[in-house]
This record gives sequence, structure tokens and C-alpha cells, in this order.
Amino acid sequence: MPAFLTSAPAPLPQPALATRRSSADRFAAVRTQSAALCRPLLPEDTVVQPMLDVSPPKWHLAHTTWFWETFLLREYLPGYQVFHPDYAFLFNSYYNSLGSRVNRADRGTLSRPPLADVYAYRQAVDAAMQQLLAQRAETLPPAFWEVFELGLQHEQQHQELLATDMKYILSTSPLAPAYLNDKPAADTCLPAPKATWLPVAGGVHRIGFEGEGFCFDNEQAPHDTYVADFELQNRLVTNAEYLEFMAAGGYQDFRYWLGEGWDLVQQQAWQAPLYWLERDGQWLRFTYHGLQPVNMAAPVTHVSFYEADAYAQWRGCRLPTEQEWEIAARQFNPNPAAGTFLESSLFDPQPLPPDAAPDQCHQLLGDAWEWTYSAYHPYPGYQKAAGALGEYNGKFMVNQLVLRGGSCATPESHIRLTYRNFFHADKRWQFTGIRLAR
Amino acid sequence: MPAFLTSAPAPLPQPALATRRSSADRFAAVRTQSAALCRPLLPEDTVVQPMLDVSPPKWHLAHTTWFWETFLLREYLPGYQVFHPDYAFLFNSYYNSLGSRVNRADRGTLSRPPLADVYAYRQAVDAAMQQLLAQRAETLPPAFWEVFELGLQHEQQHQELLATDMKYILSTSPLAPAYLNDKPAADTCLPAPKATWLPVAGGVHRIGFEGEGFCFDNEQAPHDTYVADFELQNRLVTNAEYLEFMAAGGYQDFRYWLGEGWDLVQQQAWQAPLYWLERDGQWLRFTYHGLQPVNMAAPVTHVSFYEADAYAQWRGCRLPTEQEWEIAARQFNPNPAAGTFLESSLFDPQPLPPDAAPDQCHQLLGDAWEWTYSAYHPYPGYQKAAGALGEYNGKFMVNQLVLRGGSCATPESHIRLTYRNFFHADKRWQFTGIRLAR
Amino acid sequence: MPAFLTSAPAPLPQPALATRRSSADRFAAVRTQSAALCRPLLPEDTVVQPMLDVSPPKWHLAHTTWFWETFLLREYLPGYQVFHPDYAFLFNSYYNSLGSRVNRADRGTLSRPPLADVYAYRQAVDAAMQQLLAQRAETLPPAFWEVFELGLQHEQQHQELLATDMKYILSTSPLAPAYLNDKPAADTCLPAPKATWLPVAGGVHRIGFEGEGFCFDNEQAPHDTYVADFELQNRLVTNAEYLEFMAAGGYQDFRYWLGEGWDLVQQQAWQAPLYWLERDGQWLRFTYHGLQPVNMAAPVTHVSFYEADAYAQWRGCRLPTEQEWEIAARQFNPNPAAGTFLESSLFDPQPLPPDAAPDQCHQLLGDAWEWTYSAYHPYPGYQKAAGALGEYNGKFMVNQLVLRGGSCATPESHIRLTYRNFFHADKRWQFTGIRLAR
Amino acid sequence: MPAFLTSAPAPLPQPALATRRSSADRFAAVRTQSAALCRPLLPEDTVVQPMLDVSPPKWHLAHTTWFWETFLLREYLPGYQVFHPDYAFLFNSYYNSLGSRVNRADRGTLSRPPLADVYAYRQAVDAAMQQLLAQRAETLPPAFWEVFELGLQHEQQHQELLATDMKYILSTSPLAPAYLNDKPAADTCLPAPKATWLPVAGGVHRIGFEGEGFCFDNEQAPHDTYVADFELQNRLVTNAEYLEFMAAGGYQDFRYWLGEGWDLVQQQAWQAPLYWLERDGQWLRFTYHGLQPVNMAAPVTHVSFYEADAYAQWRGCRLPTEQEWEIAARQFNPNPAAGTFLESSLFDPQPLPPDAAPDQCHQLLGDAWEWTYSAYHPYPGYQKAAGALGEYNGKFMVNQLVLRGGSCATPESHIRLTYRNFFHADKRWQFTGIRLAR
Ligand SMILES: [Fe+3]
Ligand SMILES: [Fe+3]
Ligand SMILES: [Fe+3]
Ligand SMILES: [Fe+3]
Repeated sequence: MPAFLTSAPAPLPQPALATRRSSADRFAAVRTQSAALCRPLLPEDTVVQPMLDVSPPKWHLAHTTWFWETFLLREYLPGYQVFHPDYAFLFNSYYNSLGSRVNRADRGTLSRPPLADVYAYRQAVDAAMQQLLAQRAETLPPAFWEVFELGLQHEQQHQELLATDMKYILSTSPLAPAYLNDKPAADTCLPAPKATWLPVAGGVHRIGFEGEGFCFDNEQAPHDTYVADFELQNRLVTNAEYLEFMAAGGYQDFRYWLGEGWDLVQQQAWQAPLYWLERDGQWLRFTYHGLQPVNMAAPVTHVSFYEADAYAQWRGCRLPTEQEWEIAARQFNPNPAAGTFLESSLFDPQPLPPDAAPDQCHQLLGDAWEWTYSAYHPYPGYQKAAGALGEYNGKFMVNQLVLRGGSCATPESHIRLTYRNFFHADKRWQFTGIRLAR
Repeated sequence: MPAFLTSAPAPLPQPALATRRSSADRFAAVRTQSAALCRPLLPEDTVVQPMLDVSPPKWHLAHTTWFWETFLLREYLPGYQVFHPDYAFLFNSYYNSLGSRVNRADRGTLSRPPLADVYAYRQAVDAAMQQLLAQRAETLPPAFWEVFELGLQHEQQHQELLATDMKYILSTSPLAPAYLNDKPAADTCLPAPKATWLPVAGGVHRIGFEGEGFCFDNEQAPHDTYVADFELQNRLVTNAEYLEFMAAGGYQDFRYWLGEGWDLVQQQAWQAPLYWLERDGQWLRFTYHGLQPVNMAAPVTHVSFYEADAYAQWRGCRLPTEQEWEIAARQFNPNPAAGTFLESSLFDPQPLPPDAAPDQCHQLLGDAWEWTYSAYHPYPGYQKAAGALGEYNGKFMVNQLVLRGGSCATPESHIRLTYRNFFHADKRWQFTGIRLAR
Repeated sequence: MPAFLTSAPAPLPQPALATRRSSADRFAAVRTQSAALCRPLLPEDTVVQPMLDVSPPKWHLAHTTWFWETFLLREYLPGYQVFHPDYAFLFNSYYNSLGSRVNRADRGTLSRPPLADVYAYRQAVDAAMQQLLAQRAETLPPAFWEVFELGLQHEQQHQELLATDMKYILSTSPLAPAYLNDKPAADTCLPAPKATWLPVAGGVHRIGFEGEGFCFDNEQAPHDTYVADFELQNRLVTNAEYLEFMAAGGYQDFRYWLGEGWDLVQQQAWQAPLYWLERDGQWLRFTYHGLQPVNMAAPVTHVSFYEADAYAQWRGCRLPTEQEWEIAARQFNPNPAAGTFLESSLFDPQPLPPDAAPDQCHQLLGDAWEWTYSAYHPYPGYQKAAGALGEYNGKFMVNQLVLRGGSCATPESHIRLTYRNFFHADKRWQFTGIRLAR
Repeated sequence: MPAFLTSAPAPLPQPALATRRSSADRFAAVRTQSAALCRPLLPEDTVVQPMLDVSPPKWHLAHTTWFWETFLLREYLPGYQVFHPDYAFLFNSYYNSLGSRVNRADRGTLSRPPLADVYAYRQAVDAAMQQLLAQRAETLPPAFWEVFELGLQHEQQHQELLATDMKYILSTSPLAPAYLNDKPAADTCLPAPKATWLPVAGGVHRIGFEGEGFCFDNEQAPHDTYVADFELQNRLVTNAEYLEFMAAGGYQDFRYWLGEGWDLVQQQAWQAPLYWLERDGQWLRFTYHGLQPVNMAAPVTHVSFYEADAYAQWRGCRLPTEQEWEIAARQFNPNPAAGTFLESSLFDPQPLPPDAAPDQCHQLLGDAWEWTYSAYHPYPGYQKAAGALGEYNGKFMVNQLVLRGGSCATPESHIRLTYRNFFHADKRWQFTGIRLAR
């Protein structure tokens, strides 16, 4: 889930004193959140890489730190000495501009540096950043503040990955360990309200990020797009609905599937979403609370694009495009406070209350990323940044699909209606869900 | 390059007698063309499969025959007995509806049936088809004629594949055997005229197939789309221009490449388009005439999407979307006769004459398929057909990119401005080229 | 099945005129036999490589010819010009001394040169060899005659490979084509006589090749070895006996299997020897006559070492070592005429007559190669030859097991009691069988 | 390095009280040693599996504990409850008899149970074992004592694996962390004494384990074997000598290599033994003290069989067979106290003093395992045990080579002159070295 900074056409004005103070506070808050997420983990949990997509939490903690060190401290803090000369090799993710690095597939073979050293690394970099913000804020140029903002957003992206990677790591153990010790929130099984279809008027609409504040470069430039009239369902597909697809033999009938998806179903013997397990006739899911009965009213998650599309085909519907999604979302203008985000510590999308308004569009922000049937390609007029940060987003713009709306593992302050997330069609370890269009 | 039949909104009228006669003639002509393409091949050439994408010519000859037998003779010719009970298993390509089949990767391990048996199969099916067309044409229903037309188009698609697969097969031999014994056509090396930029006005435009005649289902339904103003180059990128990219270190600089493309460049040690070979400081290409010096004025071909995009990046331009391409092509309304197609037996795109009009758009049809920066996804309102033929196109609509305009290996009667071809971003064995946009 | 020339301690004497004549005759006979084996094949059959171990027959025909050209014509025929400059690259098998070559895995992707060219190559080399033998035999040095003899033996080895590779190639077709059109020889199903145990006295015995005539270097040097008293079964294990193992669940019980063998049984889902197929409750085998009922009295073949060992374990017996085998074979001194060899054109081991003498040891030569529980390692005092031919045998002396006695695909004049064949433990496409020891 | 219990011909007598006490002491000593080895490790170090051959130390600590629980506590301690119901699945290594288990390749993906739980598991099993030994020793049957002894030997084998696996794990870090903080022992670089050749008289000799005490089943049965006269070098090959091979282009010349070894040299780009690294013209090795200059007088280690054999070929010598090794070793009767073993905590073989007696055979026990040119096959008369423990050794008896003499990572009380260790020819992460024969 890489991303990028807006290359704003006009240079940003120098932030005022209040802003600088709030910068230090925001920095501290974001950094604290990453570490807080890892607090329930044992050192052993932070080292392993049970599949290529997953990075060890220790690596996330160090890589986000390396980002601040590389892009800001080395540039702007006079006399700054890197914490360790080998860390650039160990914790660079994919920046060719910044030299060679540990093979991604080998991140889980590295026991050293130990977790304690990584926390020391965080502390040292945090202190240096605070020193920089305290002493030199008035002289830091706009370019600094651009990358500073990007660093915050980058760290938030890795918080979502931390949440989903930790889940995958714990799930591989036959011991099915719980990350959270309290009771799951939504275990009353009131049925979700029946989904309704909300019409959206077609025509030429403007999409893409405009206005103040941060966005990634991939949300640029704002542009017109044409869509025909369409309808969108007013909530996410639930586990109960998805189970109907399973019960109807959806995983056994090639007619609903894209060819490469059907090949995967065969090879991987997929029978259900990731983390589902049938035991004694009951469907369980691995969650942050360990193995739990599937909450039928909650949105289905951990489905690939192939599964989302097959489900839609089976229903005689389709997935929306990202243009449709954004046009609808701008029209329905969801209240972010209604969504489930990382800050809730629920780590699962929540069922819609039975009395949710049928004429409103729910769960657009938070809960689950919504697969769209749109390729992750550059917007018209897209420009990638110069230098190493030009590798942040642009080089991924092929062979992936756009997801919209954020999830229960996304920080609330991180999401926007214009936000474009992207994954390959086969990925299932993120909180990915389904909203139908027609 | 799979494709599909138009599900015409109104049922096609019964073809008149003249049409029926011309059906028999068209059938004979298309069938003859397939066999004619293979005439210069030895039996040995028709068996091998040097890479997964390539099918043995013997298989193409049999598979296209199986198509007529399966979808028409078995349905419409009373008392028809299949030529051989095992051929359905051997020559079904990818239709799950029609049962199990030889693994695609194993097509090149099958020595039997021998080529002679495949020709006998063709003859038997041709005779039965002619009998059917002669005796029962008046009673054949519209559904027959739909699939009949599809069968012709399908066979033409396989003619292009035959041309490109044969080339690949011969190229793997260190003997560099020639398929054609005459001299290459365009060996005068007059430089191509300088490319010009042609402006196209944006706005809402209609694309997709409309009107009479055949189209594949993926060209349906016609619909409006919005594009901003843009410019398109008036000809394809030449070998000379591409060589500048190579000389400038294009294959050594990650900055121009999409991430997955750059990985491939490293792994496969790509240094030039497919079939290029440097010998004593001169660049040669494997062609239908064996190894030949690169004709600098001719359009570059056998480049992947990654190379096309990297070239465009390096030039500070971009590839067009398929919407842009079609809107421009409709506006410039190219003369098909000016293009190079399969029927020319040239098997290579031809250089533009030095005096070609700078204000016209050349090489839109024929010569080389043009990579677009558009994913091969369903058009709004796309409906796949019922039954086995529903597998023709729809199930490939993810992870591939659209190419437009046909190539020197496409039959002239097969191409249209609305035609959507599609390949994965790494494919290079088709006659794929580059047209720049900005 | 590579092999090598005896480095005779004393130089061989100059062959007399009669010998020279017989050399020309032997050369012609061996060369003719290779081509004769391929006569029933179509060009298409000679090109494919359905698995790595199998080489296309066209390749065998050319490689054996390259051997004569490389090691004799280029050395000894003044003014000899190689037939084609690229053939050394195409048809060198594994001699690093002789430069780079086509990757072994790619032998089946080469359609060119066509079979006809390979036959022309054979003819040209045959003619040049006959010219050399006719004109210069009196002056050819002992080193020539050594390699000449090796060339004959080498070609015979490839005849066995031709026989087994052709079988595998034809077997991959669902058409199950027959190589031979006559009826299988042994279709009366008289039961084989009950196997008896023949005692062999232990002690220090001499093994390895001694005396006149040709042997490969790996049979050298003759040396003493000690074995304890043991018993050997007087015939090969039959299909009927092997079927008892299968019926007793042998392929489902890990206890009988070596670990790496058991892994293979799981991964490859082995349930029977190679080429066996159960249809309507009856076991069939793919043979040179197409699919045929298993002849229960005939020796089992196409079993891996793992299967041979598991069978022996299940019987409470074991496989002999190669020392035991040779000591017993020297003692029982089998009559070669009683065995089934390539020259019989039966291409399957034959059942022992019901009245075969119970106190004699049968089927030691011909019929089926007998897996021994001996690693293919150098004998004490083994010396590999200098130059390229030093790569013939020595470099394979690890990770393979010795097989003894030749098979129905071995030329009769090629086998000896001291002959050491060798394959990896998982190989099944040779005519490999089982003899029990205890 | 799996192993097995002697099936002693006569049942062992009931151990006397003193023996029982010493059993408790031996048990405690061996168990303590395993944990002591892991003391310098961080939890992070105990989790990862950087290659298939390596198991995470946490796994070793748990697996050896599972062995006691499974084979003794569950059988002999009335009322014993397993520590955790999932541990049998998690910590069974390869016993099919005992059910399914974690895939070997996935051992490094398991973060749970954490190291602390594994130590608790050890403590609980140790306490139960001591209780059993204290309370019921008088009534425990001979079968108990057999498996008890096997358990001790098994745990010692895993101590050696712990030592070599820890080294490999630490070596993968670019930080090159040291396991030991003191100075390396032998950093004076006195040259090793020149190697001498010691003659051994051939003839029929008896090898294999005889007499009192423990041996693995693979050392059984004692038997006669014949060898010719031969000579053995009186010490291991040194790093200095091996460097001569490297300097002479040994890794670039295929003539010295077995074919499969040469393929590996190419594929893996081997240029030196494992853990060697050239920096600024100096050769360093990764050791328990981190990166250190190569001690030229010390025995070379971490070479594969292919490298050992290629070195011997280059010297015009050969590797001994295991029969030769044992016959020589029995004759030279080495003093175990002279060798370097695990207990020394040196973790590297030590150089021979310059004044070491030239007519004595040194370094036969300890220091480095010596590759022999003998396949790991069953001895004549070998019988594997009944039940799960029958899987201990027998099923590995193919495709591996025998190593003799123990290493600096072998517990001194664990090694014998008859001990047969075994590895595949390509393995390099054990302390494997070279002794020449001729
Ligand atoms: Fe990152
Ligand atoms: Fe087709
Ligand atoms: Fe050969
Ligand atoms: Fe073990």
C-alpha cells in the first residue's frame, strides 16, 4: 500500500508557530500509535514472515523509522549521524534510488537487529526529529514540510499493514493465539438490514483530489470523467450473504469466475474467504480474538478481487468502477464518524444496525476496503515526483486493482473519498470487502 | 487473443441465397488461408512449444477445426459423427464447459496425431461444413449464422497466432531458418519522416461497436466516455527512435520502468526488443527471412508493455488510453488499404514513406498492435453470452492491457477501429509496437 | 546411461586386415540398427521431449553421429570438413571440454534441423567413416581403435535410450499409439514358475572387468571384495507378484519406503509402476503394441529403485548389492542366448517358461535391468581418461544406483556380467526390474 | 543427522541403583547442555529458518522435549498428561507413525509458542522425567532404558544441530553478530605441520559396532569387509591448502568436479567454502566470534562433498571410503581427549601444533566431520526397529554420503569410531572437512 505526496502547484506557505507545535504533537502521536499496535506482540511475533506479502512487525517498526532518518534527518538536521550504517541496507523497502537492500523474501530470516534495538532506533530518531522540529522549525523549507507530511501518512499506511500482517502471523499458528484479550464487540447476531439500491445520476463528474490538505500523488490530478446512470448498494455485502454464495456452490462453478481466478481456486483449494474454518458444521474465523464464530451480520472481508467479482456475477450484479465509487461517495457524503477505523481497536468491520436508514449509503468509509473493477493506472495528468520519492506510487501502476474507502485497520485521519488503495487481484490478507453495483 | 460474437440486439434476418453462397466461399477462403500459412513448415515445425504462450501449429490447425465440429457440426448436421473421440480432449483450448483437456503446457509434448491426420481432420470437417451449407442453409437458424461468423473470426485470430508462433518456433533454432525465401521487402533504408503531433479535441465521445456486421462481445456495448484534449503522434515509433532509448541506457535505468517491468528486465537480462541480436556492433533481428539487419525506418515491434511505457517515459510522453486511441482513430478515419496485413505476406510492419503527409495519422490499422495504457476490462453494459461461448472473452478481463489497430499478421478483413486485443504486460512475441500520446 | 572406454594398460595391437574389414562391417551394422529403430516413427515423433530425461529421437540420431565426427573424423580424416558448423552446439550432450551447447531441457523445442537433414548428416558421416576405414586403416593408431570401439558402444547405449524414449513419447498421447503392429509375443498367460532361492558362498571374490575385449572405464579396475553368504532368487519378480504388493496396500504404507521415496509416492500419486493403467478393474500397460493387459507371468518393469526397495521390504527381503550380483552371476554363468534383448524386437521382458529349471538362475542377462542397493561410485583404482572422454562416466559417480544385467532394450553384444549401468533412484522409464536377495 | 538405538541381541540387565542415580544425573546434564547452548541467543534468534536444512533453535528445544514426552512419559509415567495437545503436531520432526505435523519448510513461520513457553515445556518434562526416574526406576523394563539412552543420544545430536543452525542463522545478518564475546582461541598463525601419508594394510577387516554400550542401529551389524592397501593423510586438510586449490582456479575448472557438483558451482556461484568472504584482498570467515580472518593452519570446514572430492581430484588423491576410514581409525586408535568437541565451546576445529608427531594420525575424532566416498546404505544384516523408532535412521539410507569422526560441535561422549553420520553431497552448513586418501 505505497503512496505519495501531492506535488502542490504553488509552494506551501511557511507553517505558523501553532502549526509547528502541532507538527511535533502529530509526529509524536503517529509514532506512538505504531509502537502501541505492537505492544501485545512478543519479540518472536515480530520476526517471522509467513508469506511474501507479509513483513515482520519488527521490520515495519524499523522501516518507518528509516524513512524519517533518510528523507528528513539526513537532509535537514546538521551533523546528524545515522543510527547504524547497515540499517539503510536492512530497512529500505523498494527504493532503487537508495541502493541495494535485503531481498523482500528474506525479511523473515533476519533475527538481528533484535526488537529492543529497533525500539532504541525509534527512540533515537524520534528524539532527533523532535530536536529538529523544536530548534529549526522556522527555517525549514516547504520541501521539508511536504516530506514531513508524507512521512506521517507513510507511517499510517504501515500501521494498517502492521495490523493485517500481525493477524496473518498469528493465524499461522495452530494455537490460534488472540491478540486482544477482551470479548469481541459485536457478538449479538442481529441480522443486517436488507440492502437497498441507491441510484446515482450519470454524466460528466469531477473526481480526484482538489483543495487543501494532503493527498497522495496518485489522487492527482483532478479531472472530469463520464459515467452512465448506475445504482450502488447501500451497504457492504455481509457474511450471511456471502455464505449463500458458498452454499450455492459458488466455489465449485467456473462460470462465475475470471479465468485466472478459477485457476487459483483450483490450485489453492479455496472454499471460503481467508481465515474461515469449518468445524463441526459451524463456520469460524480467525480474528484478533482468536477463532470466533462468523458474525453473519458483519461485512465479509478477506476476499480477493476474484471472489468479489465471482460473488457479484453470481448475484447478477457487478463491482463498481473507482469513478462510480467516488462519484457516488461524493454525492452520499458519508460521515466518517460512523465507520470503524484503526483507532477503535475493534479490528473487524461492524454490522450495520438493523434500523440503519435504507435511503442512506453506509460503510463507505472504514470497515472494509471495497474492491473496484478499475485498474490502478495513472490519472490523466499524473506526474510522479523527482528523486527517490518518485518511486513511492508511480511504479506500481499496472496489474493491480483499486480499492476505496479504507477499513477497520485504517487510521481515521488517513482516509479520504479520493484515496486510491491498490492490490493484486489475488490478495486476501487485507480487510477487503464487497459492495455491489448495477 | 480470444474473442467473441456480438449478441446483436435484434435477431439477424435469414441470409439470402447470395449470402449463403458467399458463406460457403468465405468459409473456404478462411480455411484455406490457415493451411496456406503452414505450407512452408515441416512436420517437425508444427509440433514444438518452445514457450507456454506458443502453441504448436499442428495444434492451431486442429483446434480451429474442432471449433467448427463442436459448435456447428455436432449441433446442426444430423447424424454427424465426430472425426475422432479423443480430439475433443486434445484440441479444446480453454472451455471448462466442454470438459477436461490437455494441459496447456503439454501441447508441445504430443507427437500424435501426426500432421497428416490433422490435415485429414480439416478436410473431413471442411467437407461436412460445405455439405451443411449446401444442403441446409435455408433452414439454419440465426443462432447458426452467429456462430458461423464467430467461427470465421476465431479462425482468423488463430491465423495471427500461427504467424507469430511459427516465428517464435523458428527463432529458437541456432540455425535461424527462414520461413520466406524471397528477399525482404523494405531493405532500402530511407529514413522515416519525422513524427508530428496531431491534436484531438476532448469531450464526451461515443466508443464501442455500433452498426451492422460482426463484432466481438468485448466491443459492446457502445457507450459515452469523456477524455480531455490530447495529442497523438502521427506514426508508430521506429526502430531508429527505439535504438536511441537503448543507446541512452534505457534498459539500465530503473527510473523509466514500472516496478514489475524493472524486475523482469533484471531477471531476463533484457537489453533490446525480442528477436534483436547484436553482432559485431550491428543490430540484427530474427525475421521471416532469417536474421536480417534492423530496418531503422520501420516501426519497432516485439516490445512488451513495460518497454513501450519505459520508452514513453524516457521521451517525456505517455501511451494513449484505449478511449483516446479509438476517439482519435474515428476522427482520422484511416484507409485500411494503407496498412500492412497478413495478406501481404510481408510479416513485418513497413516503414512510412519519407513523403507521408505530416498532418495525417498513419499506421493506425495494420503494421503493429499498439499498446494502450488501458486495462482489458468489460465495457459498461457488457454481457457475456450463455453457454460455452460465454467463456470466449469475458473470463480474461483482468490483468491484461488493451492493444489496438491490428498488425502485419492480422487478416485485413478481421480488424476494426473498435477491435480490442489484449495481452499481459510482459508479452513480446506478438507484433506489438508503440504510438506516443501526450 | 553414459559409459566409457577401457584405458587398457598395454596399448592394443594394430588390428589385422580381417579385423579392419570387420570394423567396417560392425560400424555399418551398429549405425544401421539406430536408424532401423526409428523407422516406424513419424517426423513428429522424433522432435518432442515430454520430460527432461527423455531426448527426442532426432537428437539421439544426430548426437551419436556428432560423436563420430567429433572424436574420429575431425582427428583422423585429413581435410574433413564438419557437416554443419552449428551441429556441435546442437548435438553435444554434456561435454564441457567441447564448449557450450543447447540446454538439455530445451532439446524438445528445436524443430530444426529437420529429420531429413539429420539422416543426411548420418549418411555423410557414415560415408566419411567408411572412407577412413577403407583408405587409412593400416595407419590408424591404437588410440583411434580405442575410440572407434567406444563409438560403437556409445551408439548402442543410445539405441537403448531410443527404445525407452520412444516408448515414453508415444505413451504421452491419449491415442496410445502402437509402435509395433504385430501381436504381442507372450499373451498366453501361463503362470511363471515359483521362484527359488539359490545360495551363494561368501568370502573374498574378484569382480570388475578382466581379460580381452571392450569394457567401460567404470568396470575397471578388477579388484577383490568380500561378501557374506547370501541367497539370490532364481528369477525376476513378476507382475503377478508385484500386484500382490499393490493389493496389500504397498503404495499406501510408509513403513516399506525410504523417506525420499515416500515423499515421491505422495507428490506424484504413484499407485503402480509407470505405464500401468486401471480400467474397469483390469490392469493395462502401455507397450510397444499400445495398451495391453498386464502379462502376469512377465517380469515387472518400469519401477523406480524406491519401488524395488519397498517391494523387497514388504517381502521381508532386500535387493542385492552389485558385488553380490556380480559374484552370483559369475558363478551361475548365464547363457546370453536365453535372454530377451533389443535384437528380438520384443521390447518387453518375457515370462519364464513354467518348466524353467528351479536350480538355475534365470534372466540375469537381458529382460530387465536389476536395481542393486549399491551406489554408483568409482571402483578402487578407478582412473578416468584424459581429455573430453574423461567426462564420459566419471563425473556421474554420485547420487545414482547401479543396475546390472541389461534389458530387453539392450543390444545383446553390448552387455557383460561386469557392466555397470546407473540411474537416480526415482527413474522409471527404463526397463528396470527387481531381483530379490536375502 | 538422525540416529537410532542398538537392538542389542540380549536384553539389557536391570540397572543397579547407582546406575539409576547416574541416569538422573546424565539426563540432567544433557538437558542442561541444550539450554545452555541457547543462552546467548535472543528470542528473535530462536524463531527464524533462513534455509530448509536449518531449524529454529526454539524448535530444537521443543522437539527434543517432545521426544521424551512421547516415547517415555506417555508410556511409562502413569497419569501423565501431555503439556499441550497441539505440541505433538508442532514438534514431531518426521515420524509418519505419529501422525501429521507442521511442514518442515514452515518451521520458521511459527512465532508461537514463544520461547518462554518452550522453556516451561522443558521444565515440566524434565520434572516429570526426574519424578519417573526417582520413583519408578526399579520397575522400569529394559525397553525403557533402551529408549532412555536413545533419548540422550538424540538430544546430543540436536545439540550439534543447534550449534550449526545458530551459526547459520546469525550469519545471514549483515550485522555479522558474534555468539561468543571472548577472543577466538587460535589466532596465532603458526603453520600446520606438513601432512604425512600413513600406510594401512589391506585385507579382510571387521567393522561396525561390537561390545558394550550404546550404538545407533546403523552401526549394526558388525561384519567383515575387504579393502586393498591404502594410505591416509595424518591430518585434516587445512585452510591454507584449500586456498591453494582456490588460487589454482579450482572453482573455475570443471575437470575436477562431479557433474552435479559443477552444476551447483555454476548455479550458486560458489567461489569458496560457506562463510568465506573476501574483503580488500583478505579472506574472512563468519564464525562464532563474528567475521574473523581465516586461520590458515586450521582445518578447512563448511565444504560440501563436491568440494571435498574436487579438492582431492585436484591433488591427484581421493577421499577414503567409510570402510577404509574405520579400519584406519581402529588401527591408529586416536585419543579422544586430543580432539576439539562441543564441550570446549571453541566452535571451530583447531590447528594441529607444529610439532605434532608425523607418524601419528591426528584429528580423527572431533574437529571436523570427514566426508567419505561411501553411500549411506544399510550394513549387511541391518535390521530396523519396530514401531515409530524404526523411522529414526533406516528411511534415510539412500542418496546421502557417510561422514566420520565427529566435529567441534559434537559432544565428546557422543562420538565413536563406528559412528556413521550422513548428509547429502551439497550440504555445507555442518562442520565438514576433508581427509585425503590414496
Ligand atoms: Fe514504506
Ligand atoms: Fe481458440
Ligand atoms: Fe551420448
Ligand atoms: Fe530429532
